[in-house]
Amino acid sequence: MDRSREFVDALVQSFAPAAYTLDEQDRRSYEADWRGLIDEPAVAVLLPSSTVEVAEMVKLCARFGMAIVPQGGRTGLVAGAVPIKAFAQVIISMRRMSKIRGIDSVNNTMVIEGGVILQSAQEAAAAIDRLFPLSLASEGSCHIGGTIATNAGGIQVLSYGSMRHQVLGLEVVLPDGQIWDGLRSLRKDNTGLDLKQLFIGSEGMFGIITAATVRLLPRPKCTLTMLAAIDSAGQALETFVKVQNLCGADLTSCEYFTSGGLEMVLDHLPDSVAPFRESYPAYVLLEVASLDSSADLLGRLEPMLAELLENETIKDMVVAQSEVQRLALWKLREGISEAERAIGGAIKHDIAVPISCIPDVITKISEGLHGVAPGCRLNIFGHLGDGNLHVNVVPPQGVALSEFYSHDRCVTSYIERTAVEAGGTFSAEHGIGQLRVDSLEKYRAPVELALMRTIKDAIDPTWMMNPGKVLNLAR
Amino acid sequence: MDRSREFVDALVQSFAPAAYTLDEQDRRSYEADWRGLIDEPAVAVLLPSSTVEVAEMVKLCARFGMAIVPQGGRTGLVAGAVPIKAFAQVIISMRRMSKIRGIDSVNNTMVIEGGVILQSAQEAAAAIDRLFPLSLASEGSCHIGGTIATNAGGIQVLSYGSMRHQVLGLEVVLPDGQIWDGLRSLRKDNTGLDLKQLFIGSEGMFGIITAATVRLLPRPKCTLTMLAAIDSAGQALETFVKVQNLCGADLTSCEYFTSGGLEMVLDHLPDSVAPFRESYPAYVLLEVASLDSSADLLGRLEPMLAELLENETIKDMVVAQSEVQRLALWKLREGISEAERAIGGAIKHDIAVPISCIPDVITKISEGLHGVAPGCRLNIFGHLGDGNLHVNVVPPQGVALSEFYSHDRCVTSYIERTAVEAGGTFSAEHGIGQLRVDSLEKYRAPVELALMRTIKDAIDPTWMMNPGKVLNLAR
Repeated sequence: MDRSREFVDALVQSFAPAAYTLDEQDRRSYEADWRGLIDEPAVAVLLPSSTVEVAEMVKLCARFGMAIVPQGGRTGLVAGAVPIKAFAQVIISMRRMSKIRGIDSVNNTMVIEGGVILQSAQEAAAAIDRLFPLSLASEGSCHIGGTIATNAGGIQVLSYGSMRHQVLGLEVVLPDGQIWDGLRSLRKDNTGLDLKQLFIGSEGMFGIITAATVRLLPRPKCTLTMLAAIDSAGQALETFVKVQNLCGADLTSCEYFTSGGLEMVLDHLPDSVAPFRESYPAYVLLEVASLDSSADLLGRLEPMLAELLENETIKDMVVAQSEVQRLALWKLREGISEAERAIGGAIKHDIAVPISCIPDVITKISEGLHGVAPGCRLNIFGHLGDGNLHVNVVPPQGVALSEFYSHDRCVTSYIERTAVEAGGTFSAEHGIGQLRVDSLEKYRAPVELALMRTIKDAIDPTWMMNPGKVLNLAR
Repeated sequence: MDRSREFVDALVQSFAPAAYTLDEQDRRSYEADWRGLIDEPAVAVLLPSSTVEVAEMVKLCARFGMAIVPQGGRTGLVAGAVPIKAFAQVIISMRRMSKIRGIDSVNNTMVIEGGVILQSAQEAAAAIDRLFPLSLASEGSCHIGGTIATNAGGIQVLSYGSMRHQVLGLEVVLPDGQIWDGLRSLRKDNTGLDLKQLFIGSEGMFGIITAATVRLLPRPKCTLTMLAAIDSAGQALETFVKVQNLCGADLTSCEYFTSGGLEMVLDHLPDSVAPFRESYPAYVLLEVASLDSSADLLGRLEPMLAELLENETIKDMVVAQSEVQRLALWKLREGISEAERAIGGAIKHDIAVPISCIPDVITKISEGLHGVAPGCRLNIFGHLGDGNLHVNVVPPQGVALSEFYSHDRCVTSYIERTAVEAGGTFSAEHGIGQLRVDSLEKYRAPVELALMRTIKDAIDPTWMMNPGKVLNLAR
């Protein structure tokens, strides 16, 4: 701990009091994982207000061999932005770096700092009649830097891609404290390695993202939102394929959930309203958008929807007639996580499979899991159009999550294996963080893990950047 | 040369005769750059027919310290896929690996080998009523592996992105001969580093791409193609911005060319027809597509086009009334390179700038270049919507290109500097290859070059994979 004390002395001497927090109480809110699964102390929380300050802090950390945990809005689900056990480390929170540096309505780009909240970025784009298309449940608190570091997805990936597709340029502080100014704002640039790709989705492993150039898009001028009631995942898939072939990228969202998820929302979220008189096994929420304010979206879809209703692929259907109704339909899907938390939480998974495999994978998981964790309630929902399902396992009625966690290993192993065997992944958008490090070791080929380690060794030889996340420290 | 002889002996002992060519005459067509600028000998041309064979060949090369030049369709413009001077190297041509391994119309993906010709990939997608959206002039001969290795662009990037956006998974033979099977076919997969990003656009620096999973899209059901005559690049930009804000991703192409380019085509390509009675300084070719076969694309655009014609942003306009007319309009744009070759070729550049800077950059280049290379004819054309312009400098009438090349250094320096000073790049889609290595050294920051070298050292410690391309060998 001498090293930590020396580091703190140097920190206090080098930076203004606003640039760090040492107080144990103040540090608490930075140290704990959002889900409350991980809570480990940091030597200090650093709060830089400029890229140069980040660079100076990283150099100071390097000098004292102090590991760094880059932190955004701390909304991740795999504890990737909080300290790990038994390690002298500091948190560098980006929350004071929240400037929008520039916006260009002709080039359709925006330069924003890492600590900008996603919703603020969306609002800045909307203010000039543009769309910043990343949208996800935590957009009111997650940081742009975090969404880049985790390659965030969300509810509009189908049309606009994940965060990787939005980023045109990056500014990064590297592990040795050098600043890489890669804030180009070009659609095409084939000049050697596209270095920004290395940092996107790398979960803070290679440096700290201090700013980014992101692309903006024209804003849709009309939207059609529909909820279809269906009997099975196979019918959900059939509906999705038909609508996508008709609408292409105009289909911005295709979300799936089951009667179990809907019931949780109706039971626990005030103001949620049942969409149908009857209950159905599952539901698909579809949203189609157009830049053409006079587009007759419903007229375009109607013949196909009528056919799907007639041949009973779709059992029943509602179409939002107003923005209020649209938000009410979305609440049924977006309220699921909150409702699940209200009943005590769940073991969470985030798989993706080839879209054609979704029905089989859902069947296999549903059938097999009851043997693995008897009495559990399965809450499967998510971004069907991306092949991405959140597979959450809720304890049996009356069993606390903490108690149910005894099944975690078996549940996790069953779900992950089922996804991987279908050609899928055990983490579609949540990333690896601390919580999926073992899964990465288990399911990725040695040649792939070795490549990742080789690159980590090359760029961060002392493994000081977010150690223990993504890659196993023990070799 | 002993090493080369020993290598050849081992090659002949290890592989069937169909798997290599040693004959000097047969080798010729693999050794020379498409533009005829570079023509250096290879010790042998290897012609693997399977991924395992590629791996064995790479191991053999590694054993004898033989450098490898991976080669696709050899249609690149920067000599990235042919040997460099004074180096014992072999070419590995992928042309025998041309299988389409699988196609999935529900997941909308296709698994194809590196040697598949782009047009074959397009046709395979079309056969199941899907679109493989990469489209470029050399699509009849370029390989998928090459388009990935160079992150190829083309005429539909505006709507569908460059090759990087089409790739979901890769199979790669690494410099040590290991095979990385990363042929996943998922839209989302955040499990550690997204290794495929490293290989896309790396110009063979890290390994040989033997196969890829690419995404497919629904096929547009109707298209509107228009040619607008304009006075200046500023008006071209204004037209583009207005159409894009109205049509978004439905605007699949926005191409720019000048009267000089059009005249070349009309003079030198048979069957090309002048689109207007008068000549205008410049032209914008716009194509809008829709999945909706009953979409009234012209009706949607008409009020805006009428306004642009009335306020003289657009001077005149033709709309293709048939597929024949559509192809005739495209010929005026796509024939430019061929016509330029017919009059003896040009010094070629491929810049991109923030779209908002296009008019200024065109003005600056047009004004300045005549001082640098007196009498030259400037042929600027390209993908305006991507901010990407091909800036080709044609010798004065009566001067041979070989003679005009004495100006190459000054011309290149002026064009590249102008682009970079505007926040742009000196290579938008062509890459670095052999011909732009010095430019990369000149315009990229030391921290960026050092990062590239660090990663190269880590993955290919002996620099045997395509040495002398992208990064300078001399350090």
